[in-house]
Amino acid sequence: MPQLRKDPVLKQWVIISPERGKRPLNYKESTLPQVDNPADCPFCEGNEQKTPPETLAFRKTGTGTNQTGWWIRVVPDRFPILTPHGDTEREGIGMFDVMNSIGIHEVVIETPRHDQSLHSVSIDQVKEVIWAYKQRLSDIKKNPRFKHFMIVKNSGQGAASFSHSHSHIVATPIIPKRVEEEIDGAREYFHYHDRCIYCDIIKQEVTQPHRVFHEDFAFVAFCPFASRFPFEILIIPKRHQTFFENIENDHVLPFANALQISVKKLQTILPNLPYNFIIHTSPCSDAYKEFFHWHAEIIPKLTKVAGFEWGSGFYINPMPPEDAAKVLKEIKISE
Amino acid sequence: MPQLRKDPVLKQWVIISPERGKRPLNYKESTLPQVDNPADCPFCEGNEQKTPPETLAFRKTGTGTNQTGWWIRVVPDRFPILTPHGDTEREGIGMFDVMNSIGIHEVVIETPRHDQSLHSVSIDQVKEVIWAYKQRLSDIKKNPRFKHFMIVKNSGQGAASFSHSHSHIVATPIIPKRVEEEIDGAREYFHYHDRCIYCDIIKQEVTQPHRVFHEDFAFVAFCPFASRFPFEILIIPKRHQTFFENIENDHVLPFANALQISVKKLQTILPNLPYNFIIHTSPCSDAYKEFFHWHAEIIPKLTKVAGFEWGSGFYINPMPPEDAAKVLKEIKISE
Repeated sequence: MPQLRKDPVLKQWVIISPERGKRPLNYKESTLPQVDNPADCPFCEGNEQKTPPETLAFRKTGTGTNQTGWWIRVVPDRFPILTPHGDTEREGIGMFDVMNSIGIHEVVIETPRHDQSLHSVSIDQVKEVIWAYKQRLSDIKKNPRFKHFMIVKNSGQGAASFSHSHSHIVATPIIPKRVEEEIDGAREYFHYHDRCIYCDIIKQEVTQPHRVFHEDFAFVAFCPFASRFPFEILIIPKRHQTFFENIENDHVLPFANALQISVKKLQTILPNLPYNFIIHTSPCSDAYKEFFHWHAEIIPKLTKVAGFEWGSGFYINPMPPEDAAKVLKEIKISE
Repeated sequence: MPQLRKDPVLKQWVIISPERGKRPLNYKESTLPQVDNPADCPFCEGNEQKTPPETLAFRKTGTGTNQTGWWIRVVPDRFPILTPHGDTEREGIGMFDVMNSIGIHEVVIETPRHDQSLHSVSIDQVKEVIWAYKQRLSDIKKNPRFKHFMIVKNSGQGAASFSHSHSHIVATPIIPKRVEEEIDGAREYFHYHDRCIYCDIIKQEVTQPHRVFHEDFAFVAFCPFASRFPFEILIIPKRHQTFFENIENDHVLPFANALQISVKKLQTILPNLPYNFIIHTSPCSDAYKEFFHWHAEIIPKLTKVAGFEWGSGFYINPMPPEDAAKVLKEIKISE
């Protein structure tokens, strides 16, 4: 079983997942080969038997579970980084902390077609993806063993192991370090100012919109002030909202829009650009309600992270976010 | 001038360095081409005029500054990520913090020969590299504008922009986030236990040495309990010592040994493996003396960091450090 281990100094949890491992001398092939043949692709319509049984599917009336006829399908990952069975048992090994790596790891198949992607599907399909996220998250949340949920999409060569468009839902028994840091920063700001830091960021970005490239009544998409990467994008709901899974019905379209516009623009500027897309929502507790504000990050994989970044935790970004936003604003996309 | 910007939530500093940037549409070539022709290589003996004037060189008696005849040479980086000129002026832009990106960025050329590397040079040459680190750090430290110093080596295709063996010395006006986190973690442990956490880690690792693959009177090299990456290595001096630059004369050889043995073993297991090597020393303050313990990290670049890691700050490592240590222990290297 995979194991969660905590770095005693940095308090960073690492999943030690030997099932995914290879023999040391075969380590060079560090990424799975991309499956580019729809006949072999477990995510293509018609290959439903190649995945574990679905946990959710949006499908035509009359079609059966794990059969064709779906337009969105959610299944457990075949090689999960965390498994749902067992206890969240914690243990000390001398000064080290370890726990069973219990969790949920599901895959949202975003389209039945192998040749489509988040930037090429209809906006209605993007909406359906978001409905699927919302529905699965609301469901998984009922299990009290899990403290935090994340939605992650790795898109493109080098970022994903399957070329068929998909994203991951990951539930963990601990709050990941990065989210913990966001909570700490937001809490501290709230204690000082009695305001949500994300609400304040939005206010400042919208007033001086040289980093904003998309805005409507519900969402703002911009390149953050301290972008770590060229074309890094943040999408935030304008109204304070703690949990992504509580997104209002009439906010699903604006969010789908902000997301697809961002990805389409990136793909127009840099075709086939690999990117990561992440939704940060609050851990399952009302304690964060006042100061945590859910948001989505898009990180294009353009620059390499070298030793300096690993060693220092500060990043070198060769592109000012104002320049990136200008390019994103000016580039025309097909509707 | 490059700018240091602080993420208001995560308190993470980012260097926005447009001088290093390219036009957006040229962004695909994200790494500099490797210079593999000694005639063009600025780090080769005979090409001293291709670099800025040296700040330190170990050279044969009678040879002139910036001439041939050296075995170690330290020069300012031609494309520095921070520049030494100007004030460390801080400024608020609304709710955002920004400061001039003042700093030192030098390159330690580890050998005059293009075809050598840290794992193929003599142990005496590795010692000389360490002497150069020590000497430059002690010198740069005298400038009170800089708070922290880091030694970073990016080795191999994809990790370094030059194939000629070299490392970087970087001085920053702020304490980088990762180091700040190490300080916080070590301080907290010290307040609780009245002991240095690194000293305790060493004690536990040495007593149950299934993660240790090299040890002598002065240093221990092992795969840390919560390794984020396969074959991640930590080298720690056994005696509590806060500052790397205060390394005792008779500890230079053991450190050179631990370092070269680690790198040689990695290269034997996985030839041409790119890796990063980082020395974390204490920021310039006696405040950290009791609980900060300098150490070196080696991070092989085997696995790719995907969205899950970026989004969560926790890592998935397919190789238990115990297995990695076993392989490292058993593999034979040429002396």
